[in-house]
Amino acid sequence: MSYQGPKVFREAVAELSKLPGIGEKTAQRLVLHLVRIDSKEVEGLSESLKRLKSQMFLCSVCFGYTDGDPCPICKDPSRDEGIICVVEDPSDLFAIERSAQYRGVYHVLHGKLAPLEGIGPADLKTAELLRRVESKPPREVVLATNPDVEGDATALYLAKLLAGKKIRTSRIAMGIPMGGHLEYTDQVTLGRAILERREFGVH
Amino acid sequence: MSYQGPKVFREAVAELSKLPGIGEKTAQRLVLHLVRIDSKEVEGLSESLKRLKSQMFLCSVCFGYTDGDPCPICKDPSRDEGIICVVEDPSDLFAIERSAQYRGVYHVLHGKLAPLEGIGPADLKTAELLRRVESKPPREVVLATNPDVEGDATALYLAKLLAGKKIRTSRIAMGIPMGGHLEYTDQVTLGRAILERREFGVH
Repeated sequence: MSYQGPKVFREAVAELSKLPGIGEKTAQRLVLHLVRIDSKEVEGLSESLKRLKSQMFLCSVCFGYTDGDPCPICKDPSRDEGIICVVEDPSDLFAIERSAQYRGVYHVLHGKLAPLEGIGPADLKTAELLRRVESKPPREVVLATNPDVEGDATALYLAKLLAGKKIRTSRIAMGIPMGGHLEYTDQVTLGRAILERREFGVH
Repeated sequence: MSYQGPKVFREAVAELSKLPGIGEKTAQRLVLHLVRIDSKEVEGLSESLKRLKSQMFLCSVCFGYTDGDPCPICKDPSRDEGIICVVEDPSDLFAIERSAQYRGVYHVLHGKLAPLEGIGPADLKTAELLRRVESKPPREVVLATNPDVEGDATALYLAKLLAGKKIRTSRIAMGIPMGGHLEYTDQVTLGRAILERREFGVH
């Protein structure tokens, strides 16, 4: 076969290739970069990845990633505990945080209902959500699962679970994204944007 | 500002963002992946990156990356020591190896002449190349630096350095890439393809 570097080099390429979105060529380019830079920087990266697994765990309240319990959001007194935003994954939490439009707290399900893949309510943090809202009822639960079949089904399941508890449940708005064009918007999105139109009176 | 995970998480994202071609969003996605997978796999990646710097060095003959001296190519008896292919970077060596069309040995310059950036012959492994061909003259030196201004200048510099040594010097062919179209090929490439046309007689 063709020579593609010494064993340590090929091992590092193989390890990096396992990461999502990183093919073998990208991995080789990354390793070639790591070889050129200072040892300390590589050590920094290596140690930081190792620490990740040993020092990070799930918050016992919201199940977001944290290095202390409860997590910085759950223990932040400026956050409104009366609103719980339910998301599928920690990455969704970070995405909502980046929008800087939400000051409530979160609940991370760590997945969504997917019967075809055998993922039911017991595989998600749904019982934990129920216990949480029963022990300290919030005013509102925002169902912010993704707007796809499984995400919608998960939102519906949770809405039923919370029904009759005097807790307002809401769903994030679906519609045309900012800067989008009606002409290029898919029909399902456009349909929901029409159905979920909101009042726009000038008062 | 917005909460983007605990410190260990943000540190890992920051470390990965330093890599070429990896932005903050990609880094965050990679770290979220690492958090989900098995600890042992992350350990494997982390250790492999660390080993990279401690166990890899430059071959004393060709200056390619190796974990033993001389490197696997230089000590391979099936390789033709009579042909030395001069490349800019170790990545070029791997690229030529992937083509499976070359059975000679290599010499890695670790850069190319770039007077505007202050990179002269002393910053490259040019003196080492000269010593090498003088102590054990090859039949041919293939100048395989990249076909850009600096790469061409570097090839020309080396050709002059080797002139009068009864060593054949050659330059990798430039022309239209396989599967390319004349119509969409840039004028400089097309010009060289015409100038460097080769005989195509049917014997």
